[in-house]
Amino acid sequence: MTGQTPFERDRWEALLLDHAAHFYRNGWVVGTSGNLSVRLPGEEIRITASGGHKGALSRGDLLTVDGDGRVLSDILARPSAELSLHLAIYRHVAEAGAVYHVHTIESNLVSMWAANGELPLPPLEMLKGFGIPGHAAPPSLPIFDNDPDVSRIALQVEELFRRKEGAMVPGFLIHLHGLTVWGKTPEEALKHVELFDFLFRFQVQSRSMEGR
Amino acid sequence: MTGQTPFERDRWEALLLDHAAHFYRNGWVVGTSGNLSVRLPGEEIRITASGGHKGALSRGDLLTVDGDGRVLSDILARPSAELSLHLAIYRHVAEAGAVYHVHTIESNLVSMWAANGELPLPPLEMLKGFGIPGHAAPPSLPIFDNDPDVSRIALQVEELFRRKEGAMVPGFLIHLHGLTVWGKTPEEALKHVELFDFLFRFQVQSRSMEGR
Amino acid sequence: MTGQTPFERDRWEALLLDHAAHFYRNGWVVGTSGNLSVRLPGEEIRITASGGHKGALSRGDLLTVDGDGRVLSDILARPSAELSLHLAIYRHVAEAGAVYHVHTIESNLVSMWAANGELPLPPLEMLKGFGIPGHAAPPSLPIFDNDPDVSRIALQVEELFRRKEGAMVPGFLIHLHGLTVWGKTPEEALKHVELFDFLFRFQVQSRSMEGR
Amino acid sequence: MTGQTPFERDRWEALLLDHAAHFYRNGWVVGTSGNLSVRLPGEEIRITASGGHKGALSRGDLLTVDGDGRVLSDILARPSAELSLHLAIYRHVAEAGAVYHVHTIESNLVSMWAANGELPLPPLEMLKGFGIPGHAAPPSLPIFDNDPDVSRIALQVEELFRRKEGAMVPGFLIHLHGLTVWGKTPEEALKHVELFDFLFRFQVQSRSMEGR
Repeated sequence: MTGQTPFERDRWEALLLDHAAHFYRNGWVVGTSGNLSVRLPGEEIRITASGGHKGALSRGDLLTVDGDGRVLSDILARPSAELSLHLAIYRHVAEAGAVYHVHTIESNLVSMWAANGELPLPPLEMLKGFGIPGHAAPPSLPIFDNDPDVSRIALQVEELFRRKEGAMVPGFLIHLHGLTVWGKTPEEALKHVELFDFLFRFQVQSRSMEGR
Repeated sequence: MTGQTPFERDRWEALLLDHAAHFYRNGWVVGTSGNLSVRLPGEEIRITASGGHKGALSRGDLLTVDGDGRVLSDILARPSAELSLHLAIYRHVAEAGAVYHVHTIESNLVSMWAANGELPLPPLEMLKGFGIPGHAAPPSLPIFDNDPDVSRIALQVEELFRRKEGAMVPGFLIHLHGLTVWGKTPEEALKHVELFDFLFRFQVQSRSMEGR
Repeated sequence: MTGQTPFERDRWEALLLDHAAHFYRNGWVVGTSGNLSVRLPGEEIRITASGGHKGALSRGDLLTVDGDGRVLSDILARPSAELSLHLAIYRHVAEAGAVYHVHTIESNLVSMWAANGELPLPPLEMLKGFGIPGHAAPPSLPIFDNDPDVSRIALQVEELFRRKEGAMVPGFLIHLHGLTVWGKTPEEALKHVELFDFLFRFQVQSRSMEGR
Repeated sequence: MTGQTPFERDRWEALLLDHAAHFYRNGWVVGTSGNLSVRLPGEEIRITASGGHKGALSRGDLLTVDGDGRVLSDILARPSAELSLHLAIYRHVAEAGAVYHVHTIESNLVSMWAANGELPLPPLEMLKGFGIPGHAAPPSLPIFDNDPDVSRIALQVEELFRRKEGAMVPGFLIHLHGLTVWGKTPEEALKHVELFDFLFRFQVQSRSMEGR
């Protein structure tokens, strides 16, 4: 997180906006769902405002908050309702530089298949993108209950981080709600969204074929 | 509806045209199906002409009608055959500024699952986009029988508005025909189309997996 | 077919090329599959050359043939192997101005469901795009056996035209091969491809859900 | 492979980069999966670097290796981990000018249906794109076991080439991993990816409908 130049800060913001538009085109943040953030030097977090349409965001649709969620910018919008999830991740994952929260149909579908609060992931080569060595047992993805008060979900996320840190894939599901991922950089967070999406689509199509 | 400046009127028309092109790219208004309107100050309604291809509409493809459907513009085209549905909504929903009618495959599929003339919607977080509070019981979506005489469907829509106003999600289905939504603004109508589409796709894929 | 100006000829050729690129983006003419033609005044037919990739055709990829399939242009390419299908349609449908042949996955899937050599179409409002009056019984679509010698399929198409002319939807299927449509203009042929694609997708998804 | 002019070399590299971007848009090389190469005169192979995102590659993301996989360019990146698969193909298929390796969801799904190490392909007209004569029995596609050490897969590929050369479709699957194809030119390799993708999608959707 340290050592970013002003140029790098601009680039990260531009990437976040590009990725939001890309997610919208993919149908992953339709309506006004979804929220994206990056962490810049000095624990400044830039996050999408609440309620904006992700198809055509500009820099003016981003707010600055500090690590405790205090709004530092003077624009009138409120930060995303899921801000507490972003803060929980930045607090517990030192290297996290970007957090993306998306509402995909497949993430909603697979969230119904929890086994002990986790989704077993399929043993695809694609897991290599998470740095998981070949032929390792596939990891599971945590699934949290949905709650109209997102800060209560965030507390459970923090609780899990304390228990499992170092042994987690970079993401989690919320039941019938969506997928949240993080990465060292915006590019890595994008990659993680894509990898999970691939795995979920494989699982949904596989189950459709088998009639299980 | 009041207080729109000429600039705002131009912007709403431009949004309607953008949304039509977007719907076409999504496969929601293929052939010459689908129709879109906005309500401008003075109860002027701008609506797509009948039979046009939605891939490349221009302002010349829009007609002006009044609140009773009388054509005020002097172009030769006829207004959309579904004009009566648009008028019924504008008559009963004072804040409606845009009405969009689309033919999506999923809206046709879920329209077959009526229970007492309504489609129960799934309990997804995405419902929050309709302003429905978290953990509220999911609403149902009215489904009307299809009829070659659209004005007869419009009468049933008006009848329902009289019975249920204030307790409705902003849309309805017509059996094996399509989805109609409204919103305060073109942006909100777009959001509502996207939200319903997400819910319908979830339901179709969910049923494909379960083999119900 | 008569009365086209040179400007109109240019426009029709440009539309054919646009539609080919659009079909490619939709996955309907991948590999080197698919072929498109328009009929210009003087029974000149412009048709895509055999074996070209449809993603980026230009005017130089079109050949001119007469109504009997004799090549009138001096470019070295051969006309599409499905030329005989195009000629059969132009011969029997006086008002046909464009013929489009596409290989879509859904057209291959539904071609397996022949009942007496025909596919019953579902009773969707979308049928109105074919000019079929509301609440009429849905038409059926002819399905021909595939044959490595396309001219033998063309003979059967001609035979059917003689038997059924005036009572047909503007298209037919070839078993495990693809969909062929015609229209008065390129725009109408595009509309017909879109309408059939919508109906086929509805049928495929409907069957996936029902586990029939 | 001989006789390419400098212009032709530039064009092939540009095609490879275009195809990588196209595959990314199709969801076939998401995350950092997938790799593409072309063979230029003098047995110079240009291949994508390991770990790059395929959405926006440039020439600087390509490395030059010789036929034994020795890196000839002085950029710091490593060649793709699947390099050994590319080399195996170039070694045994004299006319191969391009090798594309993609991770599609459908290629992962159908790879589970091996019968004696092969996937029977469906009898679609689309097979004609491989130069397979009409009404010939559909070919099968080899499926190899996945292995964290890709060079061990490459050995099995070479073994198969020795046994079957001349009687193969231009591609193979790796179980729960992806599809590898080759072609005389980048355009032909693209065509082969598209043809296999069409066949796999047909098979997946067909099985979803039948509930087999």
